[in-house]
Amino acid sequence: MNVSQQIETPTVASERNMADAIRFLAMDAVQKANSGHPGMPMGMADAVTVLFNRFIRIDPSLPDWPDRDRFVLSAGHGSMLLYAIHHLMGFADMPMAELSAFRQLCSKTAGHPEYGHALGIETTTGPLGQGIATAIGMAIAEQMMTARFSSSLCNHFTYVVAGDGCLQEGISHEAIDLAGHLKLRKLVVLWDDNRISIDGSTDLSTSMNQLARFRAAGWDAQAVDGHDPEAVAKAIERARRTRKPSLIACRTRIGKGAASMEGSHKTHGAALGDKEIAATRETLGWPHPPFFVPPEIKSAWERVALRGRMTRESWEIRLDASRSKKRYEQTVGRQLDAEFAPLLAKFRAAHRARSTKVATRQASQMALEVINGTTALTIGGSADLTGSNLTMTSQTQAIQPGNFNGRYLHYGIREHAMAAAMNGIALHGGFIPYGGTFLVFSDYARGAMRLSALMGLPVIYVLTHDSIGLGEDGPTHQPVEHLAMLRATPNLNVFRPADIIETAECWEIALGERSRPSVLALSRQALPMLRRTDGEENLSSLGAYVLMEAQGPRDLTLLATGSEVEIAVAAAERLQVEEGIEAAVVSMPCWEKFEVQDPSYQTQVLGDAPRIAIEAAGRLGWDRWMGPDGTFVGMTGFGASAPAADLYRHFGITADRVVAEALKLLRKPLPEKPLTRPPYRSANGA
Amino acid sequence: MNVSQQIETPTVASERNMADAIRFLAMDAVQKANSGHPGMPMGMADAVTVLFNRFIRIDPSLPDWPDRDRFVLSAGHGSMLLYAIHHLMGFADMPMAELSAFRQLCSKTAGHPEYGHALGIETTTGPLGQGIATAIGMAIAEQMMTARFSSSLCNHFTYVVAGDGCLQEGISHEAIDLAGHLKLRKLVVLWDDNRISIDGSTDLSTSMNQLARFRAAGWDAQAVDGHDPEAVAKAIERARRTRKPSLIACRTRIGKGAASMEGSHKTHGAALGDKEIAATRETLGWPHPPFFVPPEIKSAWERVALRGRMTRESWEIRLDASRSKKRYEQTVGRQLDAEFAPLLAKFRAAHRARSTKVATRQASQMALEVINGTTALTIGGSADLTGSNLTMTSQTQAIQPGNFNGRYLHYGIREHAMAAAMNGIALHGGFIPYGGTFLVFSDYARGAMRLSALMGLPVIYVLTHDSIGLGEDGPTHQPVEHLAMLRATPNLNVFRPADIIETAECWEIALGERSRPSVLALSRQALPMLRRTDGEENLSSLGAYVLMEAQGPRDLTLLATGSEVEIAVAAAERLQVEEGIEAAVVSMPCWEKFEVQDPSYQTQVLGDAPRIAIEAAGRLGWDRWMGPDGTFVGMTGFGASAPAADLYRHFGITADRVVAEALKLLRKPLPEKPLTRPPYRSANGA
Repeated sequence: MNVSQQIETPTVASERNMADAIRFLAMDAVQKANSGHPGMPMGMADAVTVLFNRFIRIDPSLPDWPDRDRFVLSAGHGSMLLYAIHHLMGFADMPMAELSAFRQLCSKTAGHPEYGHALGIETTTGPLGQGIATAIGMAIAEQMMTARFSSSLCNHFTYVVAGDGCLQEGISHEAIDLAGHLKLRKLVVLWDDNRISIDGSTDLSTSMNQLARFRAAGWDAQAVDGHDPEAVAKAIERARRTRKPSLIACRTRIGKGAASMEGSHKTHGAALGDKEIAATRETLGWPHPPFFVPPEIKSAWERVALRGRMTRESWEIRLDASRSKKRYEQTVGRQLDAEFAPLLAKFRAAHRARSTKVATRQASQMALEVINGTTALTIGGSADLTGSNLTMTSQTQAIQPGNFNGRYLHYGIREHAMAAAMNGIALHGGFIPYGGTFLVFSDYARGAMRLSALMGLPVIYVLTHDSIGLGEDGPTHQPVEHLAMLRATPNLNVFRPADIIETAECWEIALGERSRPSVLALSRQALPMLRRTDGEENLSSLGAYVLMEAQGPRDLTLLATGSEVEIAVAAAERLQVEEGIEAAVVSMPCWEKFEVQDPSYQTQVLGDAPRIAIEAAGRLGWDRWMGPDGTFVGMTGFGASAPAADLYRHFGITADRVVAEALKLLRKPLPEKPLTRPPYRSANGA
Repeated sequence: MNVSQQIETPTVASERNMADAIRFLAMDAVQKANSGHPGMPMGMADAVTVLFNRFIRIDPSLPDWPDRDRFVLSAGHGSMLLYAIHHLMGFADMPMAELSAFRQLCSKTAGHPEYGHALGIETTTGPLGQGIATAIGMAIAEQMMTARFSSSLCNHFTYVVAGDGCLQEGISHEAIDLAGHLKLRKLVVLWDDNRISIDGSTDLSTSMNQLARFRAAGWDAQAVDGHDPEAVAKAIERARRTRKPSLIACRTRIGKGAASMEGSHKTHGAALGDKEIAATRETLGWPHPPFFVPPEIKSAWERVALRGRMTRESWEIRLDASRSKKRYEQTVGRQLDAEFAPLLAKFRAAHRARSTKVATRQASQMALEVINGTTALTIGGSADLTGSNLTMTSQTQAIQPGNFNGRYLHYGIREHAMAAAMNGIALHGGFIPYGGTFLVFSDYARGAMRLSALMGLPVIYVLTHDSIGLGEDGPTHQPVEHLAMLRATPNLNVFRPADIIETAECWEIALGERSRPSVLALSRQALPMLRRTDGEENLSSLGAYVLMEAQGPRDLTLLATGSEVEIAVAAAERLQVEEGIEAAVVSMPCWEKFEVQDPSYQTQVLGDAPRIAIEAAGRLGWDRWMGPDGTFVGMTGFGASAPAADLYRHFGITADRVVAEALKLLRKPLPEKPLTRPPYRSANGA
């Protein structure tokens, strides 16, 4: 037995005081900010104090020590619970001054816990349900690390504090179903069962038997009085022993301790008021001024930190003695093999020589076959569309309940939990997760994808079937607004490669990102190899580049992405041959990369001739690139159900149409044959 | 007992043949299209035949008869099940020719069922889980209608066929929790428990005990052999009697009947092949050619239609005899009272006179107080943010389990189910639903919001806290990409009113829409009344208008929406006074409405002077309006946690900044005081 495994004798006498310290710091900080959520920190102070005092191994002097326990405050509005604990444990960036600057500009104490903003925050929470679903990913990563290294190097728990909101959100269902299936035995969720939500009693909106619900999903579930330290401790002990993920329903009173408002939804999201807080000081026997914690209580919390440090130090001794040390550190550091880039360059050269024509989703799988063969860091997966997203390769055996040696997750029909779990895997460290679904179903994953971007996590979304080009499945499956939606999201790379060369390039860029998630929007339909120039340079890394220059001074510039670059090339060739119009074709696989290029490069690429932008999606955002006199050839509404070629013709996204628009733009007479558009009544009569 | 209440004697002998007719139509149509999903229609043919043959009341000769049973194919990829039944029952727009044109351009038989595209399709399905969640809304509407009229006028069931995917998606949790809580006793879900998903066995990704899960949510749950008609019938009988919503797990084999592929995931999403289909004709004893159904089997299905017609006719007799007929028809027709528009105009005039300064979320509540007092059609609600969204008024009592007289739904912390339920309420008819959450949490509701737009439903989203103006809650709660995301969505009005006048105008427009959903993006913070002109015209209906014209020829045009119009006005006034620059201010509460205005009006509004666009959100989309030389003042990344005024200063969205940008744009020297930007490290280091 090593020290980190033992359950220490609790310092019962002080636990009540330790919890009260949290309570008053939360009350006082919210009062000073006149903004925030005191009710939850006060209600869960007792249970969380037991968790930290008796179980958790975290070392404030090295907060990102890889084998630390993970503590996820899924009910992120209770951020003062976390900040109070970080202060009490002695995190260097959380002096009392930060607590008294709660929710102010430039303070460490943001309204909700933000990953990277202060030390020791394991994940950004606030949007409800995200924490518990992200924690699933952390617990998966922990099991994967344990399977790859010994339990002497990886042996930690993932603890979650979740509220009623977390358990009502749909994402919680996806997460607990997956966690129960995978038997994530080192995941322990403490549910703040206070039966209060913002609108009032949870009776207003739910009659769920949560214990029965979690058991149905394969969890161990217990209910305890959340204000009884011994009961909480006993439940956590059992949760740590069981071979299933565990729910502990902590029956609490919101705002516990508040003189007159305890139990009221009014404590949830607003300051209690000076009078109530003064009365509470009386009631709880806390004679100390705001933002002051007596040294003996601070010491009790510092003992928690000390235990964490000792555990970390003994872990370091084991790591130093381990034969796996080098491999462990490479894994935790997510170091790609040096072979990686040259092998992908070779892959590109080979397919350029061969003019390989494949769907970009297939090109992606072919590139992944190289990537997954070069590095063991990548963890694949799909939300039940493996054969469509083509996310599996020969190296990626499936992870199964009790067997985490594999490298592939069957996430089930759960796009949102997949995205959140990938965030958790990335946050845990050790792996680079990628996962697939259809581009249109990024709708379902939006909540967690936004957090990938906000946290700056190296997560890769493989989003196939990226336009009407998917054909018969029709408008429910055809994205038209999703490229805009993703491009509108800050700190997210949106790649839409045009052929196998660009696909490999985009994969290379995505894997090189350390603080940005990436989306690869990929075609269902086959696309020809279009790259004309030789050379090893990764042109996609420029965001946009001249794929085909005009043979003389440009009359026209055609801008396109993905599957529409082929159309642009065909149109340019016809314009040259049939009309003597010199058109350049610009491929724009990644707007975000192009935006940050030097203005002179941007000007050189875009040129000063009139422009036509072509994309089988909505126009929003294109005006920036095509300019005021430009023309957009794309979608104006939702798609339809028909074979892909029929749809491109129906919606007028063809070389014919581009030629016609070019002639119109350059004020040349139109060809005689009118553009036909077959009759079609869309669902909404438009 | 009226005829619609009786369980008729089953025509057992032919039910097997009736089901086989579905099977072969599905096999043959998918084969001909070489695209589609035969496995589910074949697997569920037996159970669904029992449902239709013995229970369902639908009249193909009047498919939108208000008191019909609702049949929702939540597993929408099995669309051929629905099309086959519609053909067999004699829907006028579903002749055999349509079945043989499955998934072709302009056919009625789209890849997934699309509302409005063919008769009798109750809702668009395909994105999994949407059907079951939408059905919750239909069942709520049915109960509300029953509460408002007698059960002799409203007395129908909502039947759902759901697949494994529907039950894995998170939205299903939100939906069943809400349905169980509200005790929607006339909701019956048949789950196609075939234990197969696209990737293979459901064992790959789930260990859920679905019966226990539904029971935990307050449902009645039964399991039956889905190929045993008597067992299915008995289960449906019980489901109709119980006072809870009901789940019937129909244990089936996917592709049931297929000669060699029955039970395989290969039947899920691809044609079976001519050989397999021929062998299946042998095995099942079906000697008929493709797209042929023997008259006696067709007759059996037409008896189902006949029973529907008879039930409808006797209902019409009851309606004609009812004293409530007029009110009933007004309700079903969603006819707003004639007083409605004049009362809102009066409201606007009064507040214009008073220069009322309120947050637009509060202006919205004030307008709703008028609206809800004028019409009983509006049904309010919020995803547990009632006091923040301000969606409740004095008229809207809460709906409770067993009491549906109210007009307000506490949807719980369930944005996705709220949106889907509103779709269902709108589809059912009789009501105009509106529901609130924070704008940023439209992320969670995206899947269903997209369907509001695709179906063209009059649903109104009240999305408050619409920018960094919400302040301290920080970047997780501050939308920056959401306006772009919603504007990118076809067939959706995105309103962002600037003051109380525009807010009332936008509500008026939204309520007048018959085939478009609307979003109202509303501020948390107070905004002054800005409308200068008198007159009753609803200027917001133009999408954009000149709020404040320059006093001479325009030097500059400032474009803004919502809370930033105030900034534009302040900047324009300062430019005029301090710099002698004549700037016009254009308020753009709804881009979608402005886009469809006459080009001459657009030109008049936008003018030909340089433009600055101001919006506390990302730039994407603004280039269209501000032109190539324009300047954008807004957000370039995520927000931060601080009081709102600090954030506006920090991110440089101020009149100061607009003045500085104007001088830069017009190449005048900058004022001496430099623009300061306090240091701030965002979460991702950007």
